[in-house]
Amino acid sequence: MQICRIIGDVVSTQKNPEFKGHKLLIVEPVDLDKKTALGTSMIAVDIVNAGKDDLVLVNKEGSSARLLLDNENIPVQAVIVGIIDDIDVPKSS
Amino acid sequence: MQICRIIGDVVSTQKNPEFKGHKLLIVEPVDLDKKTALGTSMIAVDIVNAGKDDLVLVNKEGSSARLLLDNENIPVQAVIVGIIDDIDVPKSS
Amino acid sequence: MQICRIIGDVVSTQKNPEFKGHKLLIVEPVDLDKKTALGTSMIAVDIVNAGKDDLVLVNKEGSSARLLLDNENIPVQAVIVGIIDDIDVPKSS
Amino acid sequence: MQICRIIGDVVSTQKNPEFKGHKLLIVEPVDLDKKTALGTSMIAVDIVNAGKDDLVLVNKEGSSARLLLDNENIPVQAVIVGIIDDIDVPKSS
Amino acid sequence: MQICRIIGDVVSTQKNPEFKGHKLLIVEPVDLDKKTALGTSMIAVDIVNAGKDDLVLVNKEGSSARLLLDNENIPVQAVIVGIIDDIDVPKSS
Repeated sequence: MQICRIIGDVVSTQKNPEFKGHKLLIVEPVDLDKKTALGTSMIAVDIVNAGKDDLVLVNKEGSSARLLLDNENIPVQAVIVGIIDDIDVPKSS
Repeated sequence: MQICRIIGDVVSTQKNPEFKGHKLLIVEPVDLDKKTALGTSMIAVDIVNAGKDDLVLVNKEGSSARLLLDNENIPVQAVIVGIIDDIDVPKSS
Repeated sequence: MQICRIIGDVVSTQKNPEFKGHKLLIVEPVDLDKKTALGTSMIAVDIVNAGKDDLVLVNKEGSSARLLLDNENIPVQAVIVGIIDDIDVPKSS
Repeated sequence: MQICRIIGDVVSTQKNPEFKGHKLLIVEPVDLDKKTALGTSMIAVDIVNAGKDDLVLVNKEGSSARLLLDNENIPVQAVIVGIIDDIDVPKSS
Repeated sequence: MQICRIIGDVVSTQKNPEFKGHKLLIVEPVDLDKKTALGTSMIAVDIVNAGKDDLVLVNKEGSSARLLLDNENIPVQAVIVGIIDDIDVPKSS
């Protein structure tokens, strides 16, 4: 699972019918400073009511996605599984 | 899932019989500007009637592919699951 | 599986209910010198009572995670499966 | 799935018994020009009678491999599923 | 599957009980010259009696690992499935 920031969404009218009712959000992996973008953005489905600019926890496996959405036929890979309130990375002594 | 552009197709006569009737399209991951190519192109199967130059949503997991194609024996990994009309990435305030 | 160092944790109140009771730890892949950071940190769940600064063995597949946590519905990918006491890399003769 | 070139093979006498009767080929991912090598070579099993220097379509998921080889116990990941006759990448207008 | 060299092992007393009786080896992906290290080392379990400095064939998927070890609960990803005697990469004509 990775820490990501929600940065936008995708509009698609012609798509697999299982996607109906699910918003397709664009998420960007970010570093522990919560700002620096890391790697390529992905398209994820949300199950915790996250919104634009939220820092979120993203699971990138389709098998998890299908369990979470309780739909064995939805062709999703990434799912937003939590909104991150804070990141705690203390300095090592 | 990733945003890709369809850039061509592959001709293969000697192949696994499960592929019969499926076009093998070449898709290239692109950035949120819809133009800049990101990483290596892949071969994907289409289920939403997408065509050359379309901006599409690509699922890269074989387990999803087999569900979508309703064929447990097809050795596919990437599937085109939606045509993207627009990408909305508002500036953060 | 990869050698990682536990460097912190993530606070998330609004999350998938299956995560309740599991601490979300931040782990960073490290090199065989046990120090040099390699690549991007991830969020992992712990099953061996590991703590901050511990060198640990991390499994990055959700299917393993669900078996280990004995919960088919938990949307976890990475799991801490062992605490590493020592790394033995003898010089080749 | 990726476009690869077959560049050699691997000799292994002491191996998992399920591999008996399968040749272990070395394949190298190549670019759309069919020549430029991309990334690291892998070991793949062949199911379409491909030979040295052939341009092939490689599926990199073990779950597909086991279906294709009709052997639930074979520890294969990559499989050669088609020989590529031609790649068609027309210029965008 | 990838060609790797065994370079050491990991000592871990506090670990998932399913690991008991399995040695945790450190393997490093190598190039076709059998020497140049490629990418990050991983921890793998051995099923073919490989030893230090051996050139081996490594399968990196947990689902294969669980089949091979005949243990549905072992949280392993990488498994050593063969010892490589020789690599044959003839020059293309």
